[in-house]
Amino acid sequence: MAGRIEAKLAELGITLPTPMAPVANYVPYVVTGDLVVISGQLPAVDGKLAVSGKVSEGVTPEQGAAGARHCFINLLAQLKVACGGDLDRVRQVVRLGGFIAAPASFTQHATVMNGASDLAVAVFGDAGRHARSTIGVPSLPLDAAVEVEGMFRIG
Amino acid sequence: MAGRIEAKLAELGITLPTPMAPVANYVPYVVTGDLVVISGQLPAVDGKLAVSGKVSEGVTPEQGAAGARHCFINLLAQLKVACGGDLDRVRQVVRLGGFIAAPASFTQHATVMNGASDLAVAVFGDAGRHARSTIGVPSLPLDAAVEVEGMFRIG
Amino acid sequence: MAGRIEAKLAELGITLPTPMAPVANYVPYVVTGDLVVISGQLPAVDGKLAVSGKVSEGVTPEQGAAGARHCFINLLAQLKVACGGDLDRVRQVVRLGGFIAAPASFTQHATVMNGASDLAVAVFGDAGRHARSTIGVPSLPLDAAVEVEGMFRIG
Repeated sequence: MAGRIEAKLAELGITLPTPMAPVANYVPYVVTGDLVVISGQLPAVDGKLAVSGKVSEGVTPEQGAAGARHCFINLLAQLKVACGGDLDRVRQVVRLGGFIAAPASFTQHATVMNGASDLAVAVFGDAGRHARSTIGVPSLPLDAAVEVEGMFRIG
Repeated sequence: MAGRIEAKLAELGITLPTPMAPVANYVPYVVTGDLVVISGQLPAVDGKLAVSGKVSEGVTPEQGAAGARHCFINLLAQLKVACGGDLDRVRQVVRLGGFIAAPASFTQHATVMNGASDLAVAVFGDAGRHARSTIGVPSLPLDAAVEVEGMFRIG
Repeated sequence: MAGRIEAKLAELGITLPTPMAPVANYVPYVVTGDLVVISGQLPAVDGKLAVSGKVSEGVTPEQGAAGARHCFINLLAQLKVACGGDLDRVRQVVRLGGFIAAPASFTQHATVMNGASDLAVAVFGDAGRHARSTIGVPSLPLDAAVEVEGMFRIG
């Protein structure tokens, strides 16, 4: 029987992907105590970057937000494995770190990162309300337009 | 009766502001176990950015340091709420992350971030001595010149 | 008698340096519960930066990777102090954060950061497999080409 969070994902029309393998010699997540620390996720869909380039230079903030949403879906896919398949064990989205590839003139970081934050709250309700730091960066691995890392508490 | 840390703040001439609301769909802090994880804070004073633009391009390192100090004051305001109003519960400033908006040629990150670190030690003494990572970034939300995030242990 | 990890370091030909003092008013590490949070380390060797400038602009990705490896050696030097001298107490490399100074066109972040990640696994085996976030940045303190921060679990 699907759990509460799986039902919510289905209601949102979200199918979790097979978790992406890291692009290098590290692991997708580490569990330490009741915390799950998840590696920075790129906006990959079916193994290909869905949003690459720089936000406000070819990539719109709205496309960037869609990318941040993809990053959060990829965090969820890793988190599900960390939870032994049961996302109902998630107690709290503790922190999301957002990295937006954009030029020095960019100021709409919040708009982009909301793509991840809004989905966190849509999926987990109050437990999805998280601390967050969002910064601009000149470049990200593989020319991704956005990267999101996460820390979660599980029970 | 004001606590020890409140007395120290008064001695330093610091009045904690009403904590800023986040600029988007997230929360200012999350408490997990004995850790408080606080969202990246901007150098806002009375709801307006006190220091915006790029350090070394219009903003001096000293103005940047003043901005980092404002960021730490805003962290303290959030931390006080997380502590139920009693900053004497703070056991340790665990980590500060500093983001300095500046061009590629910038090298004086430490000077800027010391604005936050020096205040941490002035307020908390030895318990204010923290781990720290400081990096340059091309841009920050709302064109802020500096952003500081924090992790604290409380009792 | 040297421990298991010290023996591994000797086998790898690595001599841990005297831990660098921070360049400002903070501390190299904070222990909170069973976690050690270590400040961002620069690729310093004998008190001098071994790799400075921007990767792909004068610094090759391979030189950057050598720099990231130096950063991890400096993390180890701090970690050893945090463990009271006994690196065999390290249970897990929880997370590494990698910052690569490079222009907007850079995409080989993983190549650079592998210099740190590969050494973590060479030294600690499975316990060295960590979560990781890697981003490009325009500038780092003292014009370093790379900076790596770390979180470790000790017993």
